[in-house]
Amino acid sequence: MVWERKNLLGLEELSKDEIESILKTAKSMKDILARPIKKVPTLRGKLVVNLFYEPSTRTSSSFSLAAKRLSADSMGLSVKKSSVVKGESLLDTAKTLQALGADAVVIRHGIPGAAKLLAEEVNIPVLNAGDGVHEHPTQALLDMYTIQEERGKIAGQKIAIVGDIKHSRVARSNIWGLNKLGAEVRVIAPKTLLPVEVEKLGVEVYTDLEEGIKDVDVINLLRIQRERQGKGFFPTIREYVKFYGLRKEHLELATDDVTVMHPGPINRGIEISAELADSNQAVIEEQVTNGVAVRMALLYLLIRGGSRDEEAIT
Amino acid sequence: MVWERKNLLGLEELSKDEIESILKTAKSMKDILARPIKKVPTLRGKLVVNLFYEPSTRTSSSFSLAAKRLSADSMGLSVKKSSVVKGESLLDTAKTLQALGADAVVIRHGIPGAAKLLAEEVNIPVLNAGDGVHEHPTQALLDMYTIQEERGKIAGQKIAIVGDIKHSRVARSNIWGLNKLGAEVRVIAPKTLLPVEVEKLGVEVYTDLEEGIKDVDVINLLRIQRERQGKGFFPTIREYVKFYGLRKEHLELATDDVTVMHPGPINRGIEISAELADSNQAVIEEQVTNGVAVRMALLYLLIRGGSRDEEAIT
Amino acid sequence: MVWERKNLLGLEELSKDEIESILKTAKSMKDILARPIKKVPTLRGKLVVNLFYEPSTRTSSSFSLAAKRLSADSMGLSVKKSSVVKGESLLDTAKTLQALGADAVVIRHGIPGAAKLLAEEVNIPVLNAGDGVHEHPTQALLDMYTIQEERGKIAGQKIAIVGDIKHSRVARSNIWGLNKLGAEVRVIAPKTLLPVEVEKLGVEVYTDLEEGIKDVDVINLLRIQRERQGKGFFPTIREYVKFYGLRKEHLELATDDVTVMHPGPINRGIEISAELADSNQAVIEEQVTNGVAVRMALLYLLIRGGSRDEEAIT
Repeated sequence: MVWERKNLLGLEELSKDEIESILKTAKSMKDILARPIKKVPTLRGKLVVNLFYEPSTRTSSSFSLAAKRLSADSMGLSVKKSSVVKGESLLDTAKTLQALGADAVVIRHGIPGAAKLLAEEVNIPVLNAGDGVHEHPTQALLDMYTIQEERGKIAGQKIAIVGDIKHSRVARSNIWGLNKLGAEVRVIAPKTLLPVEVEKLGVEVYTDLEEGIKDVDVINLLRIQRERQGKGFFPTIREYVKFYGLRKEHLELATDDVTVMHPGPINRGIEISAELADSNQAVIEEQVTNGVAVRMALLYLLIRGGSRDEEAIT
Repeated sequence: MVWERKNLLGLEELSKDEIESILKTAKSMKDILARPIKKVPTLRGKLVVNLFYEPSTRTSSSFSLAAKRLSADSMGLSVKKSSVVKGESLLDTAKTLQALGADAVVIRHGIPGAAKLLAEEVNIPVLNAGDGVHEHPTQALLDMYTIQEERGKIAGQKIAIVGDIKHSRVARSNIWGLNKLGAEVRVIAPKTLLPVEVEKLGVEVYTDLEEGIKDVDVINLLRIQRERQGKGFFPTIREYVKFYGLRKEHLELATDDVTVMHPGPINRGIEISAELADSNQAVIEEQVTNGVAVRMALLYLLIRGGSRDEEAIT
Repeated sequence: MVWERKNLLGLEELSKDEIESILKTAKSMKDILARPIKKVPTLRGKLVVNLFYEPSTRTSSSFSLAAKRLSADSMGLSVKKSSVVKGESLLDTAKTLQALGADAVVIRHGIPGAAKLLAEEVNIPVLNAGDGVHEHPTQALLDMYTIQEERGKIAGQKIAIVGDIKHSRVARSNIWGLNKLGAEVRVIAPKTLLPVEVEKLGVEVYTDLEEGIKDVDVINLLRIQRERQGKGFFPTIREYVKFYGLRKEHLELATDDVTVMHPGPINRGIEISAELADSNQAVIEEQVTNGVAVRMALLYLLIRGGSRDEEAIT
């Protein structure tokens, strides 16, 4: 297919074909990352701006590295330290970036819909790197890429997402995407960490970990935010670990070679035991590597658009 | 002309010929920015260091982008977070940068004359990106470039600068430069925001906005610093907006196709109404784009100096 | 010799041959830095990550510049502002960097042994840019390079290190390295700033400056941390200056053309008089330049390893 969409705002709006096209392009990118010189001139002279209103190491580094691997220039604006001091609005900042010559803007913002708002105001591609509790589409796409790579396919896979579903943009984006590609998605969480009417998202709901992971092919663990402790979401970290922390012995309940995923950074000994995190069944580092490939694919598709065929990458 | 000056410290010291040479070189740079691949190898292997003692998104991004477009490496030192912690002096920092191999230093500092002080101590070009209330020459040059582009010429244009003239390095640099190129400059501000003996700068002085913008070709609005409110400069923001905030209806007093400028970031609804900021008569984003071209021209002229003729750019 | 070591953790573990190999490679790098275009494609497509848990201008800039001069991409993670916010552990951060595709990690950390801990967990080269009071090997190597360049050789040179030996990783690394290359090392400090059993490091110990610098070829001054004042280490800065601050008249006691060094940033008028710092006998800026060359050499040796012979640099 020829890529036509201007922005990457969320998995909810993407078609099955679009998702498959991203995953296929990411495969070409991962091949580049396996070369001795992991760099191609594809986006030379292009400028990718990271506009992060929330702190982030992984996502912003991954995007800026993806840009560099394609020979694009990358410029970071960590907004707390600069223009917010002067009270500049999101939209005026975006217009400035466009006027500076940015070819794409990657935005992370605490408010759901911020990326969409931005995308409506500028005529360059906008990539949502997390907008409040709404979506985190590149994380979901790299998760899906990893599932495809590890399990051979996504359709028909039984996938359990465990943890704070209520506040997780990662969960939301994964659910939209995985459902479109035909996976069977379950969520596992205490009732207090489930969104209202969660079933309407098209998932099976479990409050018991052992019951929920029975026969699953993939377990995707969400990061627990310690600051939620004792605020009506869960009483204590210790209690959460006892009932929802994944340990090696749990894996016997799942498929033999179950894949364990986590978007990182992990809380060792909380949502995942240290032993399990360091085991072969966890693919946490593979997810990080795949994140660069997926983001390269997205920058390529959105900036180069339908202008050239896929052969032009290499 | 062959460029011979080592530093860009301010418009006060530049000759008419030098200013015109910068504006002409900037035109070549803007042509590069219109290409699909907006990058030339002109300054490959050169290093431009941004030494910012005051926070800035726009100016530092614009300089670092200008460097990248010319294939120079760019390195930022945001000094609050690093060596100031250890109490390193400005001059020792500068000498370190020179020893590291910097080919030019861009400095923003709160003290008038800081850039000059630096320039006397190092043998590499120094570009003043704002020194206290003294000068902000690259802003004035991009404003002049924009005026020339929008109006066809600078000589004879009636230009009103509105706002906090007293504390504005942008105003000061604009006045020096515009006068040298034969514009008729007016300043419009409440008396409390006018510097002592402002007439000596070679401007007409108005305290009434409607009177001041009569028949002008260009209105250049300055940013109001909210923290000055109620400190004897102006009573309240509301009062300032009432008497000096520019709205669309004001434009009837000026030339038919008056050009409205602002160095950004704008305070919507304060020095400019949102409606006017988003209208076709405001060229605020064009100023940002021109800023990159002007800074490319300056880096080129100062680093390459008289060593090559202008043809070498492309 | 063919380089085989994976990491640069400290001078204590390096052999004489390895140190000489680094200094020889640094000479080739310095030749590159003298060219009009100070850049070679040697490490194109490689990624060097700076992981700094302590603030630093000089060392991190020098490393990132060294990477750029070799055409590697450089990515900085100033950890205070990003993942530490989320409580990510050092090791998980390191694994993430490796998964992102880093070809080398430069780490500065407040805890002695942090670099070693990291090196054991990742399979990419780790360069220690300072681990607590333990070692700062690249500073020592650039000091040694400077001594060799200024004095013609290291063996047999009388070298005095003056200042806070107790808390100085620079002193420790210098002592290890200089001893291995056959220099005669002295330390000069008040007793309160000498480590326990300092003689076991293989140095002569002096508490009197004038006595200690008698006939020395090189004086290497350490930076005084003002915050140590009045905490049992030295009573006041004034007292320290009186007894240990180096002034021009002191140099008559040393060899005629004694070389004065300082790792920077200097405290003018404290460990060194301003007059002396600005004199020809101080080579503080040469040290900065040599630091880039030495770090280029290290990145080259560690990333390219024994894979190619030295001719491949140019």
